[in-house]
Amino acid sequence: MLEPIELSREESESLLRLGVVGRVAVTTPDGPYIVPVNYSVVDDAVVLRTTPYSVLGRHGRDAVVAFEVDQLDQDQHHGWSVLARGRAEAVTDPEELERIESSCPPQPWASGNRPLFLRIAWTEVTGRKLGRGWDPKAEMPYQRRLDT
Amino acid sequence: MLEPIELSREESESLLRLGVVGRVAVTTPDGPYIVPVNYSVVDDAVVLRTTPYSVLGRHGRDAVVAFEVDQLDQDQHHGWSVLARGRAEAVTDPEELERIESSCPPQPWASGNRPLFLRIAWTEVTGRKLGRGWDPKAEMPYQRRLDT
Repeated sequence: MLEPIELSREESESLLRLGVVGRVAVTTPDGPYIVPVNYSVVDDAVVLRTTPYSVLGRHGRDAVVAFEVDQLDQDQHHGWSVLARGRAEAVTDPEELERIESSCPPQPWASGNRPLFLRIAWTEVTGRKLGRGWDPKAEMPYQRRLDT
Repeated sequence: MLEPIELSREESESLLRLGVVGRVAVTTPDGPYIVPVNYSVVDDAVVLRTTPYSVLGRHGRDAVVAFEVDQLDQDQHHGWSVLARGRAEAVTDPEELERIESSCPPQPWASGNRPLFLRIAWTEVTGRKLGRGWDPKAEMPYQRRLDT
């Protein structure tokens, strides 16, 4: 079994910026929910799209949520995970929407109209990997292309 | 983009039983957390191991939690996810612990002592896949071996 190693804030944010899919946890009156989503990162916020009447649209707006990305290799029992937490808010400002659309809009895989953009400005980012001596970033099979 | 399709309860439970890693969401006084874990399924409950002083041990005991498994193919934008929800309780009964140990104990990948067994007896299981005409179970790269 491998030793769990804490990632630095810098390493954790860097993995968060490179990811494409993650999972949001929201609190509802009858307990927590987890919803897998496509996302992107704009400035220091996770941005995702949903519908106003989904679990995410109803309970993940103006509320603290958790957002997780991971890569867990079931063959080698190897992996890493990053957790970002913060308040999710609807993006309604036309200039900010324009900026998201023109820089790095989230690309949903599923069909359907998703007019609500949620922005999770993280206040806390933590991460862990299993085992020393390897770089999770170097082993990510898919990475978002970051325009410079 | 692919159409999201609801999985039946039977299909969802079947995927849940075959998985090895998932993610638990717990509610804490300062918002939700997501913790990746190894797990197993014994009867109609997800079983996992943790420490009493972890986020999971402190907030995922005697509380409703959400447990998620998924497989998201970032290359093909293809995937499925299953969400189980229910009350998590510590397993303290020696006979039940014995039964878990002898049937299908969860196998943590990370080193460290995890004396607390949590049991999530699900009351709700839902699942979705993207796109018609394929069987998520047939495409699972790793499956728990189910002894018959």
